[in-house]
Amino acid sequence: MLNSSLKAIRGSFVDFVDDPFSRSEVECVRYLQDGLMILENGKILEFDTYANLSDRYSHLPTEIYEGLILPGFIDLHVHYPQTEMIAAYGEQLLEWLDKYVFPTEQKFQDLDYARKIASFFLDQLLLNGTTTAVVLTTIFSGSVEVLFEEAQKRSMRLIAGQMLMSRNAPNFLINEPHKADAENRKLIHKWHGKDRLLYAITPRFAITSTETELKLAGKLKAEFPDVYIHTHLSENLKEIEFTASLFPDSTDYLNVYEQFGLIGDRSIFAHCVHLSDSAFQRLSLAGAAIAYCPTSNLFLGSGLFNLEQAKSKAYPVKVGLGSDVGAGTSFSQLKSMGEAYRISQLQQQNLSAFKAFYLATLGGAKALSLDPKLGNFDLGKEADFVVLEPNATPLLTLRNSAYTGNLPLDAIASQLFGLMILGDERAIKATYINGELAQFRD
Amino acid sequence: MLNSSLKAIRGSFVDFVDDPFSRSEVECVRYLQDGLMILENGKILEFDTYANLSDRYSHLPTEIYEGLILPGFIDLHVHYPQTEMIAAYGEQLLEWLDKYVFPTEQKFQDLDYARKIASFFLDQLLLNGTTTAVVLTTIFSGSVEVLFEEAQKRSMRLIAGQMLMSRNAPNFLINEPHKADAENRKLIHKWHGKDRLLYAITPRFAITSTETELKLAGKLKAEFPDVYIHTHLSENLKEIEFTASLFPDSTDYLNVYEQFGLIGDRSIFAHCVHLSDSAFQRLSLAGAAIAYCPTSNLFLGSGLFNLEQAKSKAYPVKVGLGSDVGAGTSFSQLKSMGEAYRISQLQQQNLSAFKAFYLATLGGAKALSLDPKLGNFDLGKEADFVVLEPNATPLLTLRNSAYTGNLPLDAIASQLFGLMILGDERAIKATYINGELAQFRD
Repeated sequence: MLNSSLKAIRGSFVDFVDDPFSRSEVECVRYLQDGLMILENGKILEFDTYANLSDRYSHLPTEIYEGLILPGFIDLHVHYPQTEMIAAYGEQLLEWLDKYVFPTEQKFQDLDYARKIASFFLDQLLLNGTTTAVVLTTIFSGSVEVLFEEAQKRSMRLIAGQMLMSRNAPNFLINEPHKADAENRKLIHKWHGKDRLLYAITPRFAITSTETELKLAGKLKAEFPDVYIHTHLSENLKEIEFTASLFPDSTDYLNVYEQFGLIGDRSIFAHCVHLSDSAFQRLSLAGAAIAYCPTSNLFLGSGLFNLEQAKSKAYPVKVGLGSDVGAGTSFSQLKSMGEAYRISQLQQQNLSAFKAFYLATLGGAKALSLDPKLGNFDLGKEADFVVLEPNATPLLTLRNSAYTGNLPLDAIASQLFGLMILGDERAIKATYINGELAQFRD
Repeated sequence: MLNSSLKAIRGSFVDFVDDPFSRSEVECVRYLQDGLMILENGKILEFDTYANLSDRYSHLPTEIYEGLILPGFIDLHVHYPQTEMIAAYGEQLLEWLDKYVFPTEQKFQDLDYARKIASFFLDQLLLNGTTTAVVLTTIFSGSVEVLFEEAQKRSMRLIAGQMLMSRNAPNFLINEPHKADAENRKLIHKWHGKDRLLYAITPRFAITSTETELKLAGKLKAEFPDVYIHTHLSENLKEIEFTASLFPDSTDYLNVYEQFGLIGDRSIFAHCVHLSDSAFQRLSLAGAAIAYCPTSNLFLGSGLFNLEQAKSKAYPVKVGLGSDVGAGTSFSQLKSMGEAYRISQLQQQNLSAFKAFYLATLGGAKALSLDPKLGNFDLGKEADFVVLEPNATPLLTLRNSAYTGNLPLDAIASQLFGLMILGDERAIKATYINGELAQFRD
């Protein structure tokens, strides 16, 4: 007898079963033109063609969608306190931090304000089809608490941590390392593994951390090995130069983090725009992940990320996409994919739609070592997914007008490509979190 | 006594009275926080503060707008037949033409189809706040006729011409030069100067023209000196190499056009991504214009346009913005500005909001030598304007929440910058053509 907690979603499903950077795309993409997904307690109980499953589940309440159903997008790097200062004019990284970011982050001492922004931020993620995010906060532990509380209310899978900063910042954003360590421990005990929430030890970047702070971070990571490390790496040339001057004993920027035991298969390094072959290899061998942030890299003029090298066959690095708001200019991972395409084009590289959507789904899950739980429609995984509307605007409708009826895979690739180049939050028809409808666009 | 054909628009107005690349920005921007514009027969009769004008015009019907009222955007380079094939995957210029563009242009033999697309295209321009455009068509003269007819219906100021192609293209897109010349002459007689329509002799680019064709184009231009020349120049490295091989007697790509008398103060050259110092200087001295197409240059990976060099004090070139749909990825000049900012950032250059909006308004008008008629709110000019909504989305509203009441100029700059980075057609509240409301967003 059917369990009454079951429900069914019917439509066209697209997800990935392997990494299309490592082998033929068509072997990696799974497309069910008329599929059925059965959900139980927020997880995927069954997933197959409608024809194969409909007999057994014909009496279930079934939501039927037009459009394309994909795993929810994963955002590997985003600063929630920077939501309000998105699109700040005229600076590159270090000056932009001083002029815009630090004064904004100061406001997050005020917990009411922090909660208001956290709530707005999480709703923006959902509106944009992002179901999992790795989030930077501020030095104020309360700003982490309210974010976790708001994410918990929404049943989201979220990774976050208190920002560690102990030098090269205004006084109001300096936290003494031992005090920060104690606050981190409290936060880990309270939040890591609570519902769908996970903790990340988050030194802002080498520049704002003393050696003492990085040592304590390494020690904490050793004590809590399944906690994440989340930081920035090699975003901007002046940043790299400054880092080298601060850590003269390190062989390069990545080596700063290596020296303190901060690189491993739960380490996420944002940007990596300017990396040597050696650094790419060491990231690959360590199983560490890169959060590639295309809209940010263009907006701050940081440079062009070499995706082909990062995903090389010899030393493949785990890569996902980060919106990096507020240096990034959109919460939409469609926009991240679109700018990633342009960055590839400028380097005479090709980024296909399937590769791009892989980065935003299963690629992101693998980067977080969360692929046993997230990232595609394998049975038993958590049911975070989005319904995309390929004809979200009149222009998209015209562009896609040849695609009618049962679409072959190349038409799906084209529709997805259209969305990554022309789409935005208007193309997100619905977002499901843990099997429940969290956002629906009328 | 007041003429009953008069009407009034009240709101915050922003326009430019000079080129902010040539002198201090604040001297070039004109901002009326509470302004009044009086329109008569599609032209600007009066423009001043509400305080100064209201006594005399208090009895007129007055439309009052929130937001910012700017001159309509000018699009210096856009292919209407490519509307439907926007966002075509995976190629750079020459391969992209062969694979996607040429088969699409073939369809424009069918005039019903051509009219359908022309109509959709013009409505997209209006939705995006573009009131004047320089438009490429196909080799089929009927495709020019229907475009002009549809623009005429909308009272738009539009510049267009039949595409000249006589080699290096599929047979179905080859037009014999003398036949094309005769068709051009008919089109010029019929359309050039008719209502607000103007003609452009339009060799696609050097690659697809024989010497005979370019000679005929030069002769035609000499006979009709106030007709425009509109073509492509130095977009892509392979294109430049191919051009050099086809015209071995030319000293460079620009020199091909020079040799045939196609460069002057009504010549518009799209792209100019890869230009020598000499070519920039010759463009400057000839009074020719560059259509800078940021979204296209990124999408096709053509390269980074050097705006600072183009607008140098020593040899300033007239520059405006082209959407270049379908290689460009948006009809919105806000998007062109946003990508232009990113391209500047990648070159360690700074593109302010006022400079960017200048390029899309008065800069475009100067590029077309139409600044006596268009481009700002000087008295007697044609009343093409847009109403921008700085808070078009919840994210923009949050970002702009500090801006309330009577805003100083730096707040206006910030709001405009927010729109060029985050905005799209949703920020275009209204578009006026020749003094009449042509588009309104509820």
